[in-house]
Amino acid sequence: MTKKNTRVSLVGAGPGDPELLTIKGWKALQSADVVLYDALASTELLEIAPSHVPKIYVGKRAGQHSFTQEEINYKLAQAAQKYGHAVRLKGGDPFIFGRGYEEYNYLRRMNIPVEVVPGLSSSTSLASLQGVPLTSRGFSEGFWVITGTTKSGKLSEDIYLAAQSTATVVILMGIRKLAQIATLFSAQGKGHIPAMVVQSGSTPDEKLALGTVDTIVDEVAAKGIGTPGIIVIGKVAALHEQYPTPVLSINHLKRVANGSF
Amino acid sequence: MTKKNTRVSLVGAGPGDPELLTIKGWKALQSADVVLYDALASTELLEIAPSHVPKIYVGKRAGQHSFTQEEINYKLAQAAQKYGHAVRLKGGDPFIFGRGYEEYNYLRRMNIPVEVVPGLSSSTSLASLQGVPLTSRGFSEGFWVITGTTKSGKLSEDIYLAAQSTATVVILMGIRKLAQIATLFSAQGKGHIPAMVVQSGSTPDEKLALGTVDTIVDEVAAKGIGTPGIIVIGKVAALHEQYPTPVLSINHLKRVANGSF
Repeated sequence: MTKKNTRVSLVGAGPGDPELLTIKGWKALQSADVVLYDALASTELLEIAPSHVPKIYVGKRAGQHSFTQEEINYKLAQAAQKYGHAVRLKGGDPFIFGRGYEEYNYLRRMNIPVEVVPGLSSSTSLASLQGVPLTSRGFSEGFWVITGTTKSGKLSEDIYLAAQSTATVVILMGIRKLAQIATLFSAQGKGHIPAMVVQSGSTPDEKLALGTVDTIVDEVAAKGIGTPGIIVIGKVAALHEQYPTPVLSINHLKRVANGSF
Repeated sequence: MTKKNTRVSLVGAGPGDPELLTIKGWKALQSADVVLYDALASTELLEIAPSHVPKIYVGKRAGQHSFTQEEINYKLAQAAQKYGHAVRLKGGDPFIFGRGYEEYNYLRRMNIPVEVVPGLSSSTSLASLQGVPLTSRGFSEGFWVITGTTKSGKLSEDIYLAAQSTATVVILMGIRKLAQIATLFSAQGKGHIPAMVVQSGSTPDEKLALGTVDTIVDEVAAKGIGTPGIIVIGKVAALHEQYPTPVLSINHLKRVANGSF
């Protein structure tokens, strides 16, 4: 039997810090009749939903697929039909590398009303939280967000093209392939370009490594950094206040400070 | 005389809908002693700050620079020193095309404590709100965000490279150069690629145009779309539920629906 108010909100939980949830996401959780969440979302977020509301774990872990995407789609539809308003809480933004569109499309085909509540993707928010802008006049006119891990398990072909661009390159799910990525950038003459790696950004477990394309693998090893993490490659990484070596001229930085670009 | 609690929060207001502010941004506004805002932020957001708190407009409008960046930097420091906790409310994310880093860097040089509260950039959130994922298995392994308007007024050189990539390309501040951008993509054999333009996304004035690279200029004209807006070029735009012509095979869409990528 299907509840009359059956509907789904695909809510982006943001990068980790529960306060980086949107007000819209908060309201969705408060009115939830059931919550389905994955491994990426902070468990503190679950407390926003009323305590009597069932919270169902449907996470996938790297190398350990607890549930297939088909199973998650099905469970989501089933939960909404059983309980009413189902909130599907996903780390980051539901439509950026989260396979959220597959859930959205499945629900639409099932004629279950579904809304997307965007969240802060780690791809754009973690650099900001480190005081590093993905774009800044004179440094970068854009940024390219790319996955390090494709369906085939190979490095995305797009990374080869990104290495030739002047954009800030942000790589998600690429920590395990960092050495391969660094080699690739280095081969494009980008060995000296600043790089930053952030693990578990915006959480109490946050770790940071700063260096260049040629040194970042050693820096990451020295700091004991693992997954999940983001890789940022671009001149802007040198704007981090802890960046060890000023690779940019003082005059350049002064002009940035004076806003005279 | 400088207040003891002098500090600045650079808060991203999100794309327009006040509910797309983060809880952290909401808390910053609630504890503000002064608010400095620009033209992009919804004025409803100002009501989150206590009513007695001064709200100072420091916006820049295209072609009509009310305040220079240097003036804004100075006003921001001055306001924090006079009132205490200054919230600088910027549309989208403060560190994505917002010149927020220049404000951040200026304040740090003035020894004024400053924090960044990331916001939802229109570059990533407006497509999601339209039901269009910037990335989706089988469609796109990444997205490239780029400005249509550079300091020099010319089209960013990066757009030429982006037109050669397989990433979803998101162009901010490019509406006035749409014809030029479309010609450029078309010259790369991308005339048939789906395209979407969203004006004033997530607000009551929202307008939408869907088409291909070759038709989008006419679609935008037909809908009377102007600035501010975002341009999305990539196969994913065809996933919009109002997309007129199915350019992708039914089998492909079925496989997406079944999550079998």
